[in-house]
Amino acid sequence: MSVLIVGSTALDSIKTPNAENPRLLGGSASHAAVAASFFAPVKLVGVVGEDFPKKYITLYKKHRIDLGGLQIQPGKTFHWSGEYEVNMNNRRTLLTELGVFEKFTPHLPNAYKQSAFVLLANIAPALQHHVLDQMTKPKFTVADTMDLWLNIAMDDLQRLIKRVDGFVLNDSEAHQLTKEDNVFAAMRKIHKMGPKYVIIKKGSHGSILSSPKGFFICPAYPLHKVVDPTGAGDSFVGGMMGYLSTAKGGIDANIRRAMIYGSVAASFCCEGFGLNRTTKATRAHIEQRVKELGLLTKF
Amino acid sequence: MSVLIVGSTALDSIKTPNAENPRLLGGSASHAAVAASFFAPVKLVGVVGEDFPKKYITLYKKHRIDLGGLQIQPGKTFHWSGEYEVNMNNRRTLLTELGVFEKFTPHLPNAYKQSAFVLLANIAPALQHHVLDQMTKPKFTVADTMDLWLNIAMDDLQRLIKRVDGFVLNDSEAHQLTKEDNVFAAMRKIHKMGPKYVIIKKGSHGSILSSPKGFFICPAYPLHKVVDPTGAGDSFVGGMMGYLSTAKGGIDANIRRAMIYGSVAASFCCEGFGLNRTTKATRAHIEQRVKELGLLTKF
Repeated sequence: MSVLIVGSTALDSIKTPNAENPRLLGGSASHAAVAASFFAPVKLVGVVGEDFPKKYITLYKKHRIDLGGLQIQPGKTFHWSGEYEVNMNNRRTLLTELGVFEKFTPHLPNAYKQSAFVLLANIAPALQHHVLDQMTKPKFTVADTMDLWLNIAMDDLQRLIKRVDGFVLNDSEAHQLTKEDNVFAAMRKIHKMGPKYVIIKKGSHGSILSSPKGFFICPAYPLHKVVDPTGAGDSFVGGMMGYLSTAKGGIDANIRRAMIYGSVAASFCCEGFGLNRTTKATRAHIEQRVKELGLLTKF
Repeated sequence: MSVLIVGSTALDSIKTPNAENPRLLGGSASHAAVAASFFAPVKLVGVVGEDFPKKYITLYKKHRIDLGGLQIQPGKTFHWSGEYEVNMNNRRTLLTELGVFEKFTPHLPNAYKQSAFVLLANIAPALQHHVLDQMTKPKFTVADTMDLWLNIAMDDLQRLIKRVDGFVLNDSEAHQLTKEDNVFAAMRKIHKMGPKYVIIKKGSHGSILSSPKGFFICPAYPLHKVVDPTGAGDSFVGGMMGYLSTAKGGIDANIRRAMIYGSVAASFCCEGFGLNRTTKATRAHIEQRVKELGLLTKF
């Protein structure tokens, strides 16, 4: 089955202590879509401006991503610029130009509305709602978010959390949302808001699932060097949803393994700027790391 | 086989936002010894003052800990007082009274010198050296440390790292020691200093082993509430060494499972003040959590 993915489609200019990379293909939907494309056909929903480089359209197409839901609007593509510190954990935003995103309303082509798997990647919760409103009867919906929406769109976000099957956020966002320092206590509170599946991302420490079948402690793939972590969380949910949408059996039977695939997708993302490394990965490379993660956690 | 454990034997006064607990049994050797005692006979090396409560001697004995190496000296027992913030991660030291520790020289009874497994729990590296100097031919030696010794006894510590089979430290200490932000890169540097086995503790994020047989990602047992994390790292290494000393087969065949046992010992430690919860645990409780950790990481 295919995965519908909505989120930001952007140009990222990323500075690290060692390099500067202007106008890379970025945005939550781009990272999630490429990661999901290793496992399943992807239908992309987003908006770019007339300045959006053709080579990035070619790249999406190389990954067989359906662009029927990608609007090309007069104006500029959403542009984000950020700088990482030496430790690659702390980053600060240098610039945010919303461009065509400012007036974006996602319109789903008819062929998209019946998608069984829906990933509402990080984007304004109002737009995530708008996509859900157009879906006929999705089988499994997951939303990701970021601290910005907790700060400026909490009401929309809380309504969204009620509507989805799975909710994904990082540990500091979970703390901000629930006022709980303990991640397990935080997950319990988030379940009470609605979702059956709660996933907390912890960067290089991996992620944790809380589900009807209990917890799953998902490791991060060991990386000796992180080049650029931008989009790692998006790659994680994208890889997870891509794998889930093609796995035989129910969600509970597959979600743990799906997270492992997401973790591996995120590891490739971190090894290059933007999507440079991820787009060079193959399914065989992915399977190799999944196998390694199995051995790395066995006792 | 028995485990020889040297470290601090102290009285801990611990404040948290909800409670104040004066003069609990504490110190790295106390936590490590009790954790190890669930698996193996323990020989304790340490010093206490004449004020050391009899009930704590009784407690050691209840755990069948050999006290032949515990000196009782005129003067006061080492007393540490600290305060935790609401999130239980940040703590500050309110008071450190070294007492009899100031002039402590560990003397090993003859029966101790042949111990095959030696845990140099957190204590001044000079004292850890002094214990190693007295050992006949230990099979497996592990040292733990803390940031204090990195700050004030780096030379002693670096000489110690060369002498041991395994070295254990937390992630911020690994960064301080190697100047590496990436834990895997840090572990590689520490191997070059000598030890075949390097373990980095990451608190609630678990721990990582780097060994001749590769990496092992060891989860922390999920706790919904942490009452007092003091001694969790000591319980971890104690449980690990206790299990290792009785496991059949070589170190490589058992160290992963040993870390899981250590992780479980640390989880009990966190659930009560001082050793209150750990001393109520049974081997059956431990086995139950080990089984759970197996299920929590399976995919």
